[in-house]
Amino acid sequence: MNEMPKFLQRINGDLWLVEDERENMKISYRIKDVIFSAPSEFQHVMILDSYDFGRMLVLDGVVQTTSLDGHIYNEMITHIPLSIHPHPERVLIIGGGDCGAAREAAKYDHIQEIDMVEIDELVVKVCKEHLPAVSGNLADPRVHFIYADGIEHVKKIKNHYDVIIVDSSDPIGPAKQLFEYDFYHDIRDALKEDGLMVCQSQSPLFHRNVMEQTIRHVNRLFPITKVYTATVPTYPGGFWSFTLGSKKHHQLPAQPFNKKTKYVNDAILRSCFELPEFLRTK
Amino acid sequence: MNEMPKFLQRINGDLWLVEDERENMKISYRIKDVIFSAPSEFQHVMILDSYDFGRMLVLDGVVQTTSLDGHIYNEMITHIPLSIHPHPERVLIIGGGDCGAAREAAKYDHIQEIDMVEIDELVVKVCKEHLPAVSGNLADPRVHFIYADGIEHVKKIKNHYDVIIVDSSDPIGPAKQLFEYDFYHDIRDALKEDGLMVCQSQSPLFHRNVMEQTIRHVNRLFPITKVYTATVPTYPGGFWSFTLGSKKHHQLPAQPFNKKTKYVNDAILRSCFELPEFLRTK
Repeated sequence: MNEMPKFLQRINGDLWLVEDERENMKISYRIKDVIFSAPSEFQHVMILDSYDFGRMLVLDGVVQTTSLDGHIYNEMITHIPLSIHPHPERVLIIGGGDCGAAREAAKYDHIQEIDMVEIDELVVKVCKEHLPAVSGNLADPRVHFIYADGIEHVKKIKNHYDVIIVDSSDPIGPAKQLFEYDFYHDIRDALKEDGLMVCQSQSPLFHRNVMEQTIRHVNRLFPITKVYTATVPTYPGGFWSFTLGSKKHHQLPAQPFNKKTKYVNDAILRSCFELPEFLRTK
Repeated sequence: MNEMPKFLQRINGDLWLVEDERENMKISYRIKDVIFSAPSEFQHVMILDSYDFGRMLVLDGVVQTTSLDGHIYNEMITHIPLSIHPHPERVLIIGGGDCGAAREAAKYDHIQEIDMVEIDELVVKVCKEHLPAVSGNLADPRVHFIYADGIEHVKKIKNHYDVIIVDSSDPIGPAKQLFEYDFYHDIRDALKEDGLMVCQSQSPLFHRNVMEQTIRHVNRLFPITKVYTATVPTYPGGFWSFTLGSKKHHQLPAQPFNKKTKYVNDAILRSCFELPEFLRTK
């Protein structure tokens, strides 16, 4: 790499990524090395090697996932719905270009089909090649990579999936529609009659409106709505919410959780639904 | 304020606090106003009004607590030990200059004495005056403010307290000794024969060594050691650990938690001890 990507700065001889998309709080990461940097059709894509977080996926200058903590988010968005559904066979992941959610889903032997609909093929390619701590060098024949718009994909499919995982980025730019009512309506229709969905619903502290709007949408469309949280260190404030909408199933299984993981275990599966007081009283 | 405090920078016309104490990750906060700024005998003390977190206590340029999330840390370090001890009457808080832990402890009618040993009187003064969201304008006659070194205080007292809360800053500079074996030894001796203590034991992700060392110290000194976690958005990574050492009591009470709080409730009291897989398997 001879030319420095525009999102990086050299300060006192050190390379820094200065996140610039937030108005009132900025996080800067000291960088060891630029592993990959190029624009795709949709966004600027980088893999950076950082001091504190190891390798990171950075889109348009914003950190998306890291070797240090990517597993927390990916395990939480995947194992909760796949534990609540008693026998998922067909799973759809919308977004999830880092391949981490698909990697977790592939740990279930009874799942037959994992459709991963990611708009940006370059993200998948570089994560598989340069971010193995997150993507796990995913090469499971049950995973179908579909490089398309997730919104268009769910519009076309009815009564097909057992579980849909919406692994979106922040609701700005193209991902904005992934937080709107019509999208969740199409998701409901793409699910089987006992299907369930989960989405990341942003920070309960910094994006309370987005979280509450998501809960309202899901609540209108599904008979069962549940909210759970996890600590995701690379997202602002570290405190993150997920919203689950289900047509029928809502209980965790009696048998112990038996997947090999770094974050999720039986106690976490159960305790993640326990919300702090400020999220229970409105 | 005519002169700009050295920890602040003006960037494109806006005022920013750029935290500078970490080597590989820096967080910057956009600032509305400098409410207070002066050096004390021990450190540089500021109260800043920020856009995302409201008013913040900043010591030597590092954010300590904020109006937005200060209650999470203070409720978690206070209500867990005060719920596990069945009838605490004498409580010692070491550090805790923002007065938040003392404020939470004052919610227990049966507590007769709350000694708050904080080395820096100026911190207490400015938090009481300018940070009411955290300090709650604390004016309870049971709270005794002792402006002294917590290490010297616990050396002198034997068999006196029911609960000791170590609300320290990071283990650099003067707070370093608050993470050492001898200090916990003195704490054990300052506790009654059924007493218990809790300390903040840093981030399980970024300060794993400090956390494990603290657990080892407490484990050597107390028959019961328990670790719990909380999400504290203004601390790096958001994921924070607390270590509890007890001579006798270790169970939460059967009766429901009945204090007015924003974060802690019965479900949180119980689920905070559920650790993710990477903290259970060593």
